[in-house]
Amino acid sequence: MTGKNKISRRQFVTSAAAVAAISSFPARSAFAVEVGKAATSTSSPQTSVTLTDNPAGRDQGVENLNKSPHAKLRNVPVRAVTIQNGFWGQRREINASKSIPTMHDLLEANGRMNNFRRLVGKSDAAQQGPVYSDSDVYKWTEAVGFVLQSGDRPELRASAEKVIGEVVAVQEPSGYLNTYYVDDHKSLRMSPQTQTTGHELYNIGHMLQGAIAYYRATGDRKLLDAGIRFVDDFLLPNYGPAPKKPIVSGHPEIEMGLIELYRITGDKRQLDLAGYILQGDKRIELPEHRTIYMFSGTPFTERTKLEGHAVRAMYACCGATDYYMETGEDSYWKSLNTLWNDMTTTKMYVTGGVGSRSDGEAFGDAYELPNFRAYGESCAAIGNMMWSWRMLAATGDGKFTDVIERALYNGINSGMSLDGTTYCYRNPLAFDPSTGDKIRNPWYDTTCCPPNLERIFGSLPGYFYSTRNDGIYVHLYDNSELDWHLENGTRLKVTQKTDYPWDGNVEIAVTPAQPADFVFYLRIPGWAEKAQVAVNGKSFPGAKPGEYLAIRRRWSAGDRIHLLAEMTPQVLEANPRVADDTGRVAVQRGPLVYCLEELDQPSGVDLSNVAIEVGKQPESEFQSEMKTDLLGGVLLLRHPGVSYERNASASTLYPRYTGATARTARVPLSFIPYYAWANRQATAMQVWTPLLKS
Amino acid sequence: MTGKNKISRRQFVTSAAAVAAISSFPARSAFAVEVGKAATSTSSPQTSVTLTDNPAGRDQGVENLNKSPHAKLRNVPVRAVTIQNGFWGQRREINASKSIPTMHDLLEANGRMNNFRRLVGKSDAAQQGPVYSDSDVYKWTEAVGFVLQSGDRPELRASAEKVIGEVVAVQEPSGYLNTYYVDDHKSLRMSPQTQTTGHELYNIGHMLQGAIAYYRATGDRKLLDAGIRFVDDFLLPNYGPAPKKPIVSGHPEIEMGLIELYRITGDKRQLDLAGYILQGDKRIELPEHRTIYMFSGTPFTERTKLEGHAVRAMYACCGATDYYMETGEDSYWKSLNTLWNDMTTTKMYVTGGVGSRSDGEAFGDAYELPNFRAYGESCAAIGNMMWSWRMLAATGDGKFTDVIERALYNGINSGMSLDGTTYCYRNPLAFDPSTGDKIRNPWYDTTCCPPNLERIFGSLPGYFYSTRNDGIYVHLYDNSELDWHLENGTRLKVTQKTDYPWDGNVEIAVTPAQPADFVFYLRIPGWAEKAQVAVNGKSFPGAKPGEYLAIRRRWSAGDRIHLLAEMTPQVLEANPRVADDTGRVAVQRGPLVYCLEELDQPSGVDLSNVAIEVGKQPESEFQSEMKTDLLGGVLLLRHPGVSYERNASASTLYPRYTGATARTARVPLSFIPYYAWANRQATAMQVWTPLLKS
Repeated sequence: MTGKNKISRRQFVTSAAAVAAISSFPARSAFAVEVGKAATSTSSPQTSVTLTDNPAGRDQGVENLNKSPHAKLRNVPVRAVTIQNGFWGQRREINASKSIPTMHDLLEANGRMNNFRRLVGKSDAAQQGPVYSDSDVYKWTEAVGFVLQSGDRPELRASAEKVIGEVVAVQEPSGYLNTYYVDDHKSLRMSPQTQTTGHELYNIGHMLQGAIAYYRATGDRKLLDAGIRFVDDFLLPNYGPAPKKPIVSGHPEIEMGLIELYRITGDKRQLDLAGYILQGDKRIELPEHRTIYMFSGTPFTERTKLEGHAVRAMYACCGATDYYMETGEDSYWKSLNTLWNDMTTTKMYVTGGVGSRSDGEAFGDAYELPNFRAYGESCAAIGNMMWSWRMLAATGDGKFTDVIERALYNGINSGMSLDGTTYCYRNPLAFDPSTGDKIRNPWYDTTCCPPNLERIFGSLPGYFYSTRNDGIYVHLYDNSELDWHLENGTRLKVTQKTDYPWDGNVEIAVTPAQPADFVFYLRIPGWAEKAQVAVNGKSFPGAKPGEYLAIRRRWSAGDRIHLLAEMTPQVLEANPRVADDTGRVAVQRGPLVYCLEELDQPSGVDLSNVAIEVGKQPESEFQSEMKTDLLGGVLLLRHPGVSYERNASASTLYPRYTGATARTARVPLSFIPYYAWANRQATAMQVWTPLLKS
Repeated sequence: MTGKNKISRRQFVTSAAAVAAISSFPARSAFAVEVGKAATSTSSPQTSVTLTDNPAGRDQGVENLNKSPHAKLRNVPVRAVTIQNGFWGQRREINASKSIPTMHDLLEANGRMNNFRRLVGKSDAAQQGPVYSDSDVYKWTEAVGFVLQSGDRPELRASAEKVIGEVVAVQEPSGYLNTYYVDDHKSLRMSPQTQTTGHELYNIGHMLQGAIAYYRATGDRKLLDAGIRFVDDFLLPNYGPAPKKPIVSGHPEIEMGLIELYRITGDKRQLDLAGYILQGDKRIELPEHRTIYMFSGTPFTERTKLEGHAVRAMYACCGATDYYMETGEDSYWKSLNTLWNDMTTTKMYVTGGVGSRSDGEAFGDAYELPNFRAYGESCAAIGNMMWSWRMLAATGDGKFTDVIERALYNGINSGMSLDGTTYCYRNPLAFDPSTGDKIRNPWYDTTCCPPNLERIFGSLPGYFYSTRNDGIYVHLYDNSELDWHLENGTRLKVTQKTDYPWDGNVEIAVTPAQPADFVFYLRIPGWAEKAQVAVNGKSFPGAKPGEYLAIRRRWSAGDRIHLLAEMTPQVLEANPRVADDTGRVAVQRGPLVYCLEELDQPSGVDLSNVAIEVGKQPESEFQSEMKTDLLGGVLLLRHPGVSYERNASASTLYPRYTGATARTARVPLSFIPYYAWANRQATAMQVWTPLLKS
């Protein structure tokens, strides 16, 4: 234990209220109500835990980096950013009003809550779902927690409160909590074999994340206290370096949970345990293929490439980055950069998706990026965003933000249907409906992706800004208002007006409570090859794509920044080592990767027979049209193309190459944003289109 | 039992000798010796079995179709064709003198023979290897059997005799024989679960094939009698349609074995059992994904596409074609053609390999033919050849021979190293050594491919010719001599002189014992777009690629056929639905598919940066050179190409497409035959090369 102040729950409430007053923010009613409610309604035993951070939960961001010595940036709370009507506002409203409630019902219908009730005699149903089913409940709770950080939704809050009550009711006196390793399975608890495949600590990692998000929203510590008991009472006394029993992280996740817990308790044992887990424990001997697959069980700092199960790898990298931000250990930093470069230069789809193999849900070899067979699990793209977010916090480097944006707008956003009720597990970059694959489904027995998408959309406001000791960073663009303060306490509002991602014009009003000198770090997206910045109508030089433009001046209410990032369609090719994309190009406009769906093409055109006809100025030949009635409102792109008329019989698999271009018919090709694919009838889709040079 | 003559072993010997005399062939000494030896050395119990076919084993081909009512063609015995010095002569000598002996030693070293000895108290070693390990011993025995059909090799024969003695020694009085389902596993025998995954009948299928090949070589019935006892004493009385116990073919193979056994015993119960197995038995309920994977367990005649485990599918199709040739059932013929078309128009590599997914060693979707990640198991290409051979026998249609040749020269031949001691399990069409994959290995714990390659090379002479009621077919070309007879008994020698596959010039001497009218069906390979045929120096019209040219005349000693199949390099493209080959071409010359290996290209050239520069006459720009000192002697092809100089940093995964051709350097590209790849140091390889149109 560190020597920091111990505060009781009552003190915590007082403290939070005090801070709200100090920072002159109107205490949002939901929070105030919730805190009071939590203090009276909880029935969990009183625990005495160090909470180091004042202001407490409600002022913490998606991560609490306020005391992290090796983080350059600090998060702002989700509640400090209001995303208004626009691209993400629409998505987030559906997330909160449809996705999360229907997922709650599906978790119920599929017995996930009965798994808890059964253990206290309130259900006769048999255990249902895989060993990691508890985690889906926790991830759903985390999604609710994030949503409530943006404002109260009494029905969601009531649902979550009930869920939390039913979860904590089954915690054992030892602190252990799991609905699978009970009864006949009890003897298997925390055995090396179970640790390798049983997801006990993975579940608890998600429990901690869910608990913290809910605590930050409401001040309700019930689930958080249960998580602390698991860690402090069950895990720490019994597991760790010899002579304690060994741990192996079969599916990394606990590392992130432990470190975020450390960040609010200040209990360094929790950080140290995460570091121990990240290095593996030789006492649990594992075959190499297993440590590759698990991306754990051997020292993280000896890893040199991304391989094995993609989500495991991403979560391990998240945890390792968190560990670095707390400890500054060079060996971690070196490995993290090696791995991030390996991912972004050899193993990432243009959509930001990662993990190309369905076999093992795994990273492939370098440049192994198949399109039809792409796995690109939604959770892995989310893991990529979460990791890149941590790398950004450690550095302030815009290259990480470019990857966040790429993943968010494309490989993540594609994971949830536009109506918010069906989800992708795989996010392929080409699709053939004749395979019979059903790509969007309301429920998966391994339902990791749906609540993961829900929590990421719930947490999105927390990704818009960061603070730094000398100012503020803006990372993402959408109609929104930041109401927060600089690290020196200066209260600051920042308002964005924009049609992003359909238009690269962003008007930013910077409103400090009083005139103040600070740096406004304005993100110039990597795709924005022509970006102009003006401050109060006057051009501000130095904008470079992929970097933050540091606007250092004395800011006063009424100041305006104008970013004009010219958003023209761009034609991308792939590194020639990506054999799957040879002779093909992809279309991107702003942050959005585009694709062709066959049903948008002229009648009778077969997607496998089309090519895009590219002249010397391919990008000038696009026509764009905002279609408000299509797919929730998208900007459609059209470009000249051709449709081959095959001379050879369609049944010939390997015809002679004739040397002449096959007879072609000109067809206009219509591209839609990739995220919106598969929201109508099943039809062929492709991101990478063959190139016909004219 | 049918009413055909029962003959004892003694009668069989007599009969074989009699036939040898009747057909005026000099009885080859190996056979004569072996038959006598078998008659005295066997200690297996006397069985009384119907052998319907006179002349017996030694005059039977790789399949005995002599009485198959729905086979248009009949096989000629392996021993009737002597492959002389040339392409296959070299491979076959290495196969017999190195591959098969070293595989024997590896089977020993890896405990496969101790598995048998253990059961009779002659070894204390634990059971070693997977449940299907017995099959590898049987496949090795089959390889020896085929080699001995071409002439005696006393050491091989002695090895095989010892192996066979040790196998038959463990057969149980019930007829059951398996080294895995003993002791603790005995209770699992033939349970539905074991049948699904335990390979008991798969093992016996290979045992029957091995036994029959060895019997045909030597007259030794020891192993064959053991196989007959398994079938007649254990299987037939107890398993089959209700009220007997049900069978499911977890890995098809027994079907082929049973039908070939029927073809020499005439016991129709064996054929009927194969038919029963091919239709599945509803009493064993299986999930759909399992019957897809196994390509069995549901009616074969309801299958409409190739899917699931590729080797299982190929062996099922072989068995079903055999069943069709015996029964003529239309529903089989319809399904077989549907499946064969599905394979050759959507799921076959240009190498004749099949089964593109490593996940499940399975067929992919239509047109799913990745190159780097190609599975293309050697066994599956062999299965393709064996199936296409059966389809050819049923029809006499040259389209099947084209696939046989494609698989044999490429996707099969690649499976064994040139020195005959290492083997491919996978046969990818592109390779990146940085993956660390070791593509050729002397031993696999699942060592199905190595002895499978050995048996196919051993049996090769049997694939050169067939007879038909009106004449003779030649299917394959190499220096060789056929010494056999037409179906009407006319003795016939056919001699080929050629440099095939390096040259499409084949001189064929046709020497009937006396002048005779018959049709010589001369195969015009599918690739031979310009083929000329002359008979006795005079042009013979009508040659069409992919068909047999029927040369109907009165043949006399001294007659000569001259086939000139113009063998120029051909540039192939893939059907546009094969996304992996977009913008790429492959090079084929004669039956050989070519590839690039990086170490043959100019120093510093990176294979992922090259393109082939194709003008209007791409095929006229090849230069060829016979390199006798390279890779056992290969014809090298050179073609102009370019090496890109990348403007973008090599580390950029998705650069902007510039519209301009990247700066390039001209490089001559050197192609080698695909079968010879990976016989030197590990280096990048690709079959499909990007196309740069000039």
